[in-house]
Amino acid sequence: MTLRLGDLVASLAGEFDATLLGDPELLIERLAPLESAGPAELTFLSHIKYQAKLGRSAAACVVVSPQAQQAATQRGACIVVSDPYLYFARITQLWKKRHEQPGRAGIHSSAVIDPSAELSPGIFVGAFVCIGARAVLGADVHIGAHSVIGDDVRIGRETRLASRVTVNDGCVIGDRCVVHPGAVIGADGFGFAPHEGTWVKIEQLGAVRIGNDVEIGANTCIDRGALQDTVIEDGVKLDNLIQIGHNVHIGRHTALAGCVGVAGSATIGAHCTVGGGAVVLGHLSLADRVHISAASVVTRSIHKPGHYTGLFPIDDNASWEKNAATLKQLHGLRERLKVLEQTTDIASRKNP
Amino acid sequence: MTLRLGDLVASLAGEFDATLLGDPELLIERLAPLESAGPAELTFLSHIKYQAKLGRSAAACVVVSPQAQQAATQRGACIVVSDPYLYFARITQLWKKRHEQPGRAGIHSSAVIDPSAELSPGIFVGAFVCIGARAVLGADVHIGAHSVIGDDVRIGRETRLASRVTVNDGCVIGDRCVVHPGAVIGADGFGFAPHEGTWVKIEQLGAVRIGNDVEIGANTCIDRGALQDTVIEDGVKLDNLIQIGHNVHIGRHTALAGCVGVAGSATIGAHCTVGGGAVVLGHLSLADRVHISAASVVTRSIHKPGHYTGLFPIDDNASWEKNAATLKQLHGLRERLKVLEQTTDIASRKNP
Amino acid sequence: MTLRLGDLVASLAGEFDATLLGDPELLIERLAPLESAGPAELTFLSHIKYQAKLGRSAAACVVVSPQAQQAATQRGACIVVSDPYLYFARITQLWKKRHEQPGRAGIHSSAVIDPSAELSPGIFVGAFVCIGARAVLGADVHIGAHSVIGDDVRIGRETRLASRVTVNDGCVIGDRCVVHPGAVIGADGFGFAPHEGTWVKIEQLGAVRIGNDVEIGANTCIDRGALQDTVIEDGVKLDNLIQIGHNVHIGRHTALAGCVGVAGSATIGAHCTVGGGAVVLGHLSLADRVHISAASVVTRSIHKPGHYTGLFPIDDNASWEKNAATLKQLHGLRERLKVLEQTTDIASRKNP
Repeated sequence: MTLRLGDLVASLAGEFDATLLGDPELLIERLAPLESAGPAELTFLSHIKYQAKLGRSAAACVVVSPQAQQAATQRGACIVVSDPYLYFARITQLWKKRHEQPGRAGIHSSAVIDPSAELSPGIFVGAFVCIGARAVLGADVHIGAHSVIGDDVRIGRETRLASRVTVNDGCVIGDRCVVHPGAVIGADGFGFAPHEGTWVKIEQLGAVRIGNDVEIGANTCIDRGALQDTVIEDGVKLDNLIQIGHNVHIGRHTALAGCVGVAGSATIGAHCTVGGGAVVLGHLSLADRVHISAASVVTRSIHKPGHYTGLFPIDDNASWEKNAATLKQLHGLRERLKVLEQTTDIASRKNP
Repeated sequence: MTLRLGDLVASLAGEFDATLLGDPELLIERLAPLESAGPAELTFLSHIKYQAKLGRSAAACVVVSPQAQQAATQRGACIVVSDPYLYFARITQLWKKRHEQPGRAGIHSSAVIDPSAELSPGIFVGAFVCIGARAVLGADVHIGAHSVIGDDVRIGRETRLASRVTVNDGCVIGDRCVVHPGAVIGADGFGFAPHEGTWVKIEQLGAVRIGNDVEIGANTCIDRGALQDTVIEDGVKLDNLIQIGHNVHIGRHTALAGCVGVAGSATIGAHCTVGGGAVVLGHLSLADRVHISAASVVTRSIHKPGHYTGLFPIDDNASWEKNAATLKQLHGLRERLKVLEQTTDIASRKNP
Repeated sequence: MTLRLGDLVASLAGEFDATLLGDPELLIERLAPLESAGPAELTFLSHIKYQAKLGRSAAACVVVSPQAQQAATQRGACIVVSDPYLYFARITQLWKKRHEQPGRAGIHSSAVIDPSAELSPGIFVGAFVCIGARAVLGADVHIGAHSVIGDDVRIGRETRLASRVTVNDGCVIGDRCVVHPGAVIGADGFGFAPHEGTWVKIEQLGAVRIGNDVEIGANTCIDRGALQDTVIEDGVKLDNLIQIGHNVHIGRHTALAGCVGVAGSATIGAHCTVGGGAVVLGHLSLADRVHISAASVVTRSIHKPGHYTGLFPIDDNASWEKNAATLKQLHGLRERLKVLEQTTDIASRKNP
């Protein structure tokens, strides 16, 4: 399935002020990265600093910013637009829509749906799906095969659950969300009262409340609240294999990369980013626009926007061993340095 | 569904020596945290250090310790008991039992159950469940929708598997356990013999043996042993997205927080806690009552009870960069300090 | 089911030059670790340094290297072979094959299979499996219960998917692979273009391409590429709960332990190992034969084979606190050391 270059630009003309410099009759067969794009492929230049690569590209057409226009036109067709990355994102969406199978609405005969559930028009329910009592699913919702929707769940319009998603009783998901396979929404939070050396379960009576336009990665878990709800606000993006503890609150448009763990009752502000494998400890609070580097551990609340990091720099193993061994004496080294400073100070006073 | 305050106290009178100071006719509609509890809600004071919050609480009733009784009675009804957190835990259990749908026993017609499996009375088997040959399920066991139980599995009485749980062939789970969605019990351990640059699989012939009163979080994995069994003793609590390698042994009433990884053949004692995201390397041994901080990496056996930590302190990124760069020279700095100490020592001897 | 020791050695005679010293009529009931093996059990000595344990072993027979032959024969039967670990690996395979139920080919009546899918002879399809349009499954493929195979998926001969595996549209898996429960292959990569404080989805148009003889652990996720494919080459072994981002390329016979995260567009060479919980940041490149220690974070490309580490050494919490606090002043300490060196230098020049 090919796309005429002129048609592609025309499709996005409502949203973007983009100029096509080149033949609108060119046929685009695929989208591709700059390095490998061939003569039937469309690509983009993500940053002006890479413009030297343009000359080597065999792409049919490159989406570029005005700064790269000159370099781009020297090699062939280009689309000039102020934000090429955003423009290319829209092209991927267009591409996907064109290539998707149409007409997937319908309810598979094997699905087990409680008669009290409310299903809106345009819904797709895959094979072996279970939908609980009083669940309410909005228009054009897609529930992939093998997903399990509990009692009293509400899912907003156009939200897509992939295969093998669990949404437990009472949880709420907004509109236009995407949930990937294996995600578990609303399992019990990890709450126990210690009692004579054993752990007594605190039943988790809250739920999970997810806003609109949220994406949740494969095998990611969001626990239900202990008494109140765990809350994920609008536009939050969660990658795969993330753990969100009970009572956590994540603000609008915050993005967490893969393997992040957020412990119970932590609050993360809006427009934050958390790098892959980072950990946020329980009951902490992060302000808006806080950025945590990958694999860093947040051990205290952060009240100021900014970029925070805490990880041991990697080194060849022999060097690491020497430095790590010394690290265990670091406090002592500081004390020795102090003594030396005093000694030298005394010495220099003696010998001015 | 409301609960009369007096009835609530009466329900727990067998287990606790608690005193209700206030009107037993008060109707409780919900349980809530101290900060937000309203006039129809019951809450608790987790620690005496927060007692200043009592005055601001609009809660119908607060569960408090004897030390907080005076402050609590000044604001309204309270229940005085020696361990408020434990008492509240029991209330959450009571609450859940009251609000759960009754009568869920029964076997869904879609379940695929081997004729040689033994199912005890009172069992619930959800939609699309698979149960293998010779599996034995105890009384009042609950198997959630889409769970897959292998051949020769044994599950003890009153154990609850949520939806989408896998228990592979030959694994054993005790009584009164709770297993959350997506958990995988008994996948192959990661065992390969190196052979001319490739990996030759060591088939994993052991199983997983789980005691009574164990809780296993969502998407957590417990691998089967290579030759003998991986063992999880009574009362262990595992949070979500935990990896337990083959041949691991975890002692009674130990609790592991989310995203912990325990590598193969590690032994963790009883009454330990491991914080979120921590890693325990293979073949190590941790004594009883060892407590590992979140995100710490256990690289050697720990023979003494206590609290252990190893993580890089988070900092603003610029400060971190300076300190991390210096860290790579730390061993050298120590050497330079030594030289200085010797020089100064010589100098001070010269100039006494 | 027992195995005659002589038959066992005979079965592997084609591959190994092994010598049985002892009674071939001995009956082996089980395989067991050296420490616990009893008189009906076969075990092996993994390394010559443990040979002192041989004397205490009650095993029926021990597989040993020629160096340990003398010590081994003093205690009873042994099999002498140049690589006992590899030999024992083959024995576990033999053992498993002998003890498995035969004749599992067949398609469960509950499976939902698109009529355009191509299923080769000898295939097993479990209960509630879904197989999409134009999927092609090779000879003797095993698809466990509840697995979901998307449209246009191709799976090579003798590959085994356990229960509850998802393989999304267009992904390719080679021959003789093993995929454990809950694995998700081909979920969307994590790609968004920032736009006025929100995130605009970049549709993930690539797929996942997996070679032959690859093993993928339970609940591990491998994301589909953004434009091109995510590639896992032949012989790669991935443990449980691993996250592989979009466009990642992993070279032949590389092994990743549990809980590793590899961010988008990273390239890992052949014959590498990555320890449990390690993180590889995005767009980095690791050469062949690079070995990363557990829980280390790769923050730069590594061009030289070798062993690399970066983790904070664990300590008792009080010592850690003192050293971690000092670590935040490390750059300052270095500066103070420099000043001291200069002062002392000046002082020593003054007082030669």
